[in-house]
Amino acid sequence: MPFRKPLSQGTSRMPISGIRHIMGLASEIPDAIHLEVGQPDFRTPQHIIDAAHQAALDGYTAYTPNAGLTSLREMCARKVQERNVIAADVDNILITVGSEGAVASTFVALVDPGDEVLVPEPGWTNYTMLTHARGAVPVSYHLREDEDFLPQPDEIESHITPQTKLLIINTPANPTGSVYPESTVRAIVELANRYGLYILSDEAYESLIFEGKHVSPARFDTEGRVVTAFSFSKSYAMTGWRVGFAVAPIEIARLMIQLQEPYYSCAPSVSQKAAEAALSGSQACVEEMAAAYKRRQRAVLDTLKPDGFVAYQPNGAFYVLMNIASTGMKSYDFATQCLLETHVAVAPGATFGDAADPYIRISVATNDDAVIEGAKRLRDYAMSKSEG
Amino acid sequence: MPFRKPLSQGTSRMPISGIRHIMGLASEIPDAIHLEVGQPDFRTPQHIIDAAHQAALDGYTAYTPNAGLTSLREMCARKVQERNVIAADVDNILITVGSEGAVASTFVALVDPGDEVLVPEPGWTNYTMLTHARGAVPVSYHLREDEDFLPQPDEIESHITPQTKLLIINTPANPTGSVYPESTVRAIVELANRYGLYILSDEAYESLIFEGKHVSPARFDTEGRVVTAFSFSKSYAMTGWRVGFAVAPIEIARLMIQLQEPYYSCAPSVSQKAAEAALSGSQACVEEMAAAYKRRQRAVLDTLKPDGFVAYQPNGAFYVLMNIASTGMKSYDFATQCLLETHVAVAPGATFGDAADPYIRISVATNDDAVIEGAKRLRDYAMSKSEG
Repeated sequence: MPFRKPLSQGTSRMPISGIRHIMGLASEIPDAIHLEVGQPDFRTPQHIIDAAHQAALDGYTAYTPNAGLTSLREMCARKVQERNVIAADVDNILITVGSEGAVASTFVALVDPGDEVLVPEPGWTNYTMLTHARGAVPVSYHLREDEDFLPQPDEIESHITPQTKLLIINTPANPTGSVYPESTVRAIVELANRYGLYILSDEAYESLIFEGKHVSPARFDTEGRVVTAFSFSKSYAMTGWRVGFAVAPIEIARLMIQLQEPYYSCAPSVSQKAAEAALSGSQACVEEMAAAYKRRQRAVLDTLKPDGFVAYQPNGAFYVLMNIASTGMKSYDFATQCLLETHVAVAPGATFGDAADPYIRISVATNDDAVIEGAKRLRDYAMSKSEG
Repeated sequence: MPFRKPLSQGTSRMPISGIRHIMGLASEIPDAIHLEVGQPDFRTPQHIIDAAHQAALDGYTAYTPNAGLTSLREMCARKVQERNVIAADVDNILITVGSEGAVASTFVALVDPGDEVLVPEPGWTNYTMLTHARGAVPVSYHLREDEDFLPQPDEIESHITPQTKLLIINTPANPTGSVYPESTVRAIVELANRYGLYILSDEAYESLIFEGKHVSPARFDTEGRVVTAFSFSKSYAMTGWRVGFAVAPIEIARLMIQLQEPYYSCAPSVSQKAAEAALSGSQACVEEMAAAYKRRQRAVLDTLKPDGFVAYQPNGAFYVLMNIASTGMKSYDFATQCLLETHVAVAPGATFGDAADPYIRISVATNDDAVIEGAKRLRDYAMSKSEG
């Protein structure tokens, strides 16, 4: 055996995504119904594709500044001023490689080894992965079905220690679809103020709100502690273009812009021009897609609520958490067996944290027929296991 | 003052790029000659742009797998087998957000806080930035003009300690344009074997070799310790598309592929299809661009060598390091004053490490006339300061 030093210890602690495992299995079942991934079934609207092509022909094929094209940053600043009531100007904005790039850069800018990061559970796996990759410690705060999976400030506070550095919130939330009300958002910002914490607010799903309204915590931030991650991916079906943006207090924005150089250089130039077309063009496509996701999410709820498999109210994003506790099965086993027996692929809850093991996540990003048929098969499968 | 915890201490230690400072100044001088940046003046070839557009129309607008499209990974594997004599198959390849993405993920996969990373000086600033962002310690090994800026294995060895984890090499090199001969490359791999180190070989400029040949250290790696970063940016004038790839031993490749999810998700899907077109199409564009860079690099040498401003032989990339020691000026002062007085923008050597302060970097990525006129003004300016 050759002598080699170990790989990064922090990075090696990253959990493996259970979704990838199910995707792998599902890829071998030709007629599988895919409810496991958060990939919109819509194509990028034609006017956005056309703008991207024109930009390439016009010579937008070279590096942009690290922070992104000034023209796009200005559009993003206006967007968050008008729609999110965030007091940001162009210097607070950086264009990122998807909202993933905004989230990751926030971690690199703020988190040191040994720091504690408060992550929602159930919550998106990436937060835990990034925490480990920074050599830091993820600490879960719990979201409960009987509280509509909404964060409880007292619960969060009970986990704060002198090592706590960063608090992650995500509304509308993955994997629950919950939308945080203004009172919750305000209370969380006040909590951060009290303990000197930073907040990373992941708002990638902000355009997908079916009830209530989207409230950005940065709106209430008077102390320079809230970073917000936005995406074009979900709003405009642009996941593959890899373009999003961050809004950050100036000191953090400067460091994140500096970080773009070694991690990303810049977001793709053609995609930045595509994003400009998305923001400046008709927003009918956004509304049309949001209406479809709402219709599908409602159909899933109609199928699963009467039998008690969903006991909370998701009002955004394109997910539903289904409670499989009555089956007595582990979520990985349920997801695997259900796929093999009914050909419906879902994400096992445990991939969103141990406390989410009594759940599976249903994505309604795929088409109506698949979602409706898939929900019925999931219900029938869970019923059969519950009776058994 | 609101109470806020500090930003990441490691990340905050990142040096500020002196190139950005000069670019900022130069942007206010309308007739400035831009020799400060590594941005090709060529546009992306038409057949690559067309392929990207067709891909978007065909629906390649969604996430790809974290590792990239299998079809592109297969093409990259064949490319490195045939052209770099690296024994890699598709599982060793991940498609990255430019070669920057490959370089950054290597750091995240391998480097822990407190580790030491051996970086070339003069060398690309990003290596030092990434080392700090990991909370690790950059240790410079020195490249000397009277040794053609080639790494000396004995010199490198003298800096190895028990904390040394990763050794960075870069051929053809930025900022020197030096091309490492096979004997040097072999000796460096043997050194890494002896001390159990990993090697990151940044080969973004591999298609720009004007004398000698490109030798990849991974070719001699029998112990799973060499990661190689490749780019489409310089070869095909595709800097803005943000696509490159890494070739890594299987254990490292698996971790880097896992890392794609939280840091990048994937390289842009349209850009991946553009990269396929680049690899499968005519390579005439690569040769044409390389010939232009060679012609320009030679023109700069013809202007600067007779008066002793360049005393080594660059044979690749699109840079020349000009020795300004005779002026007695600091490189920042030289770059700033020369820009204001002669309207030629160059990169101050100090941005590539303290030991590079007696130099400025001239990029020949811009057009022939600008490069030739710029070199003359630089020579005349340096002569005037040397005489004074």
